[in-house]
Amino acid sequence: VDEFGLIAKYFSPLTKGYAGAHNLTDDAAFITPVAGKVLTVTTDTLVEGVHFLPHTAPDLVARKALRVNLSDLASKGAKPFAVMLNSVFPRDFGSDWIGRFAAGLSQDLDAFDCCLIGGDTVASVGPLTIGITAFGWSDPACCPHRSGAKAQDDIWVSGTIGDGGLGLLAAQGKLPDPGGALQSRYDLPEPRIALGQAIAPWVSAAMDISDGLLQDLGHIGKASGLGAEVFVSLIPLSASYGHSGYGGLAALTMGDDYELLFTAPADHADQLLRLAQTANVDITRIGRMMVPMGIICRDQDGQDVTPLRRGWQHFS
Amino acid sequence: VDEFGLIAKYFSPLTKGYAGAHNLTDDAAFITPVAGKVLTVTTDTLVEGVHFLPHTAPDLVARKALRVNLSDLASKGAKPFAVMLNSVFPRDFGSDWIGRFAAGLSQDLDAFDCCLIGGDTVASVGPLTIGITAFGWSDPACCPHRSGAKAQDDIWVSGTIGDGGLGLLAAQGKLPDPGGALQSRYDLPEPRIALGQAIAPWVSAAMDISDGLLQDLGHIGKASGLGAEVFVSLIPLSASYGHSGYGGLAALTMGDDYELLFTAPADHADQLLRLAQTANVDITRIGRMMVPMGIICRDQDGQDVTPLRRGWQHFS
Repeated sequence: VDEFGLIAKYFSPLTKGYAGAHNLTDDAAFITPVAGKVLTVTTDTLVEGVHFLPHTAPDLVARKALRVNLSDLASKGAKPFAVMLNSVFPRDFGSDWIGRFAAGLSQDLDAFDCCLIGGDTVASVGPLTIGITAFGWSDPACCPHRSGAKAQDDIWVSGTIGDGGLGLLAAQGKLPDPGGALQSRYDLPEPRIALGQAIAPWVSAAMDISDGLLQDLGHIGKASGLGAEVFVSLIPLSASYGHSGYGGLAALTMGDDYELLFTAPADHADQLLRLAQTANVDITRIGRMMVPMGIICRDQDGQDVTPLRRGWQHFS
Repeated sequence: VDEFGLIAKYFSPLTKGYAGAHNLTDDAAFITPVAGKVLTVTTDTLVEGVHFLPHTAPDLVARKALRVNLSDLASKGAKPFAVMLNSVFPRDFGSDWIGRFAAGLSQDLDAFDCCLIGGDTVASVGPLTIGITAFGWSDPACCPHRSGAKAQDDIWVSGTIGDGGLGLLAAQGKLPDPGGALQSRYDLPEPRIALGQAIAPWVSAAMDISDGLLQDLGHIGKASGLGAEVFVSLIPLSASYGHSGYGGLAALTMGDDYELLFTAPADHADQLLRLAQTANVDITRIGRMMVPMGIICRDQDGQDVTPLRRGWQHFS
């Protein structure tokens, strides 16, 4: 099977008839603008051995690659509608592997109401490298950026923190994970799409947490010209996390959370909690933005327990 | 220097102040639609050892990655305006290498009047892998596809064919290349942007030639439900190609041309030639579309000289 056969067999059906995709037989895709909306575009590349473990099941690779991109769109309040796929498949991957990859992608495109509109397919010596570019429509008045936080704003997170990071340890066999709850959070993050759209009009800044909560909060702080105070005892931890023996401070520097991190004026708290309930996602206040630059973590006694390393960096 | 420092130092200036890029400090880019236009999007990933030789100068890697994507936009008649960059840099590439890469990208973003609006940066064990996603605006009435060719339409190509393929041989030291003209065609393809926009209203089908003229013409034939007849003696060859000793037939199956391949009714020929003159690019009629499926190459005596292998395939 050549690349054109692979595309026709496995990927063309994922266009779901989107006219601008031309069934993946053209050189480009064509997106017709939606009146009054802004097009929100994000892209993330996942490399075997960096973002997922070697020999991960092909459907999980596809689904994670899609979900981490949809998580970025969610943080901007965008409604996802389409993706492009750049695949660098090791030359010895057969059509069975690629078919299972496409099946996983198909499953989650359906789950998140998106279609595939283009991309390219390359054979290489490896490693497996999957790039996804995701497109969503946003209300131009409700696109939260990282730069809008104000001093005294509450800092919120969705869901629980640290499970993805422990899930990686579990997948590596370094941590017991009865039932597989932690590894599941690492393998299949849950993009908070409904929540992201609901809260977009009420937040001052938002992003998703991918490289460690403290590091990512540092981005909001830097972009907003502010610092932040985080109360470790308020960090929402799952039961599985609690059983691991790790504490709340460790959760702040682990990667792969893919939860939303956002700031909002204190008087929006009740509204945010109501919207989160409707979206069926817990949200938790963990601190507040401050005028002095820098991120400070405090324990229950108010002691500064800020760790030296804040999160994942590719070049360190 | 961490990845955020690299991005701020080398890549943020390439946004040229485009508001929706947020200086590359946000999770997504925001594209405000242009009234009456369709957004044309294309993406190609280049992998070291597949699309360019190991140890290629960093500025040339960046410029080729950009140009092959702009060539796709050109073939669809789109005016490029922005790109996203997905970089997988080997971990041992220093900031000097990355700075030279960014300088090359900057040079060609200026040359083609585009800006950088987003992307991501990953460190890996290698190989160097560069993905570009390019965005352009098109008139919805003038987006040539591969599927619109009609029987008896003329088949045209821009520029000269085969130089890029010989350029690869020259770069590998397998062919003399005094003056470096051939390798220059391999290293730095010339996206035919002005020509693509000018001819878009007059062509029935168009694409760019990247994987071999015959193979790519096969795509137009298949999408249009037609075959084609190509006259080898009409293939435009450069002086450098002529000196190489290779014949016209060989040029038809070499990759890396990045010239436009298009079809048009015979009575548009004069108009097309005028538009090409204005765009300062030669165009040449090389054959015609036919009802019987399949691509046939004929020599000056009308003999069928069709080669078995039509071009580059990633999985064969």
